[in-house]
Amino acid sequence: MHYSVLTLFPQLLEPWLDEALIGRARAKGLIDISLHNLRYHAHNKHNTVDDYPYGGGAGMVIRVDVVARALQALREAFETIDAVILLSPAGRVFNQKLAEELSQKKHLSLLCGRYEGFDARVENLITDEISIGDYVLMGGEVAALTLIEATSRLIPGVIGDEASHQQDSHSSGLLDYPEYTRPPSYEGKQVPDILLSGHHANIMRWRRQEALKRTLLRRSDMLNKAELSAEDLGFLEKLSQEF
Amino acid sequence: MHYSVLTLFPQLLEPWLDEALIGRARAKGLIDISLHNLRYHAHNKHNTVDDYPYGGGAGMVIRVDVVARALQALREAFETIDAVILLSPAGRVFNQKLAEELSQKKHLSLLCGRYEGFDARVENLITDEISIGDYVLMGGEVAALTLIEATSRLIPGVIGDEASHQQDSHSSGLLDYPEYTRPPSYEGKQVPDILLSGHHANIMRWRRQEALKRTLLRRSDMLNKAELSAEDLGFLEKLSQEF
Repeated sequence: MHYSVLTLFPQLLEPWLDEALIGRARAKGLIDISLHNLRYHAHNKHNTVDDYPYGGGAGMVIRVDVVARALQALREAFETIDAVILLSPAGRVFNQKLAEELSQKKHLSLLCGRYEGFDARVENLITDEISIGDYVLMGGEVAALTLIEATSRLIPGVIGDEASHQQDSHSSGLLDYPEYTRPPSYEGKQVPDILLSGHHANIMRWRRQEALKRTLLRRSDMLNKAELSAEDLGFLEKLSQEF
Repeated sequence: MHYSVLTLFPQLLEPWLDEALIGRARAKGLIDISLHNLRYHAHNKHNTVDDYPYGGGAGMVIRVDVVARALQALREAFETIDAVILLSPAGRVFNQKLAEELSQKKHLSLLCGRYEGFDARVENLITDEISIGDYVLMGGEVAALTLIEATSRLIPGVIGDEASHQQDSHSSGLLDYPEYTRPPSYEGKQVPDILLSGHHANIMRWRRQEALKRTLLRRSDMLNKAELSAEDLGFLEKLSQEF
């Protein structure tokens, strides 16, 4: 997978190229990330990329011709671009399912906004518009990192043990069960006995039940979409009666 | 506002200290950010912060005693900490309303996980657990940046024009209206005439209607919670009949 990021602030993303998991995945050739400065495609010698909004109002708007030239340069450099994604709070909401879908692509191009965003005519230049959540950021860079982290860790070989992400919160449709490590006792709080029992089947069942319980208490909205067995449903019914 | 970030990878966040808006806000003394390496609070001379999960399974779990020592050191350095937030996909979901609430605090301490997360007993050390969305990241650093960006821009003086964020997507409960800037014509696509008319009241009405239309088409779920006037409702009803 190749990620190309178009941004006015490539320096914000630079250390991420050497982030532990991303750095290793790049070294193994599993992913590649290139950073592209929108400023290089400014429309005049003053390096201007933005202008005042038509109709008035606060803030500046990034010009459509600047974005068009930046994308054109990208297409000349890479043949493989199969998605141009605008990061914007008005886009469709990113989730684990969309991460899985995007992780199958060959080349994601991520367009990061700033100021009051882009001239609306960029919609003709992009293939998708994605929001990482219902809040407003200073720019698209954090959203681009979100997409890079969430999708690249689904690419086989990127995280050490592939079993690891199948049990993550959201991958299974449930929140993750609680984890414990040493010390066995900390300020009077013990690790649950069952985890020390060595009885694998019981541990599996306990973890499933803890994940169900946590999801019911914190995010009951997720249970509607989760794949639940008859045993799961029985446990949830019993829990609901208790509360 | 002071943000203290506890992480195993402070270098990922370093360039953000000088990010355009954040750098200016720090220079003005409106916000401050300190980065704290969890590794300095390792439990042995090998700098170990994590251990195998009890009960088996993939990945490593960060020890509760390491986190406790890091938070203790933070409390000794700062008296003002009024929230210790664990960034985790199992937390409550971050949104603009929560950003507004948190932006009123004096000192947010942000705890970033890695690997399979933290020993569940950290729940006794934190005041809140927040998720930036229904997906799994490589670590909490991107989530910490999300909270920093979304909350700090709501602090008076951080973004140039305070009017700017009141019209943002999600602040008003609607997606933002489309913006346009020069050139007035680009590859056959024109800026809407009304924005060139100079008629302020008409422009305001057009923008409101475009925001309503966009929200109806893309995120109709948001309309249930938005504050809508009788005129808004009339416009939406007319739109719904058209589609």
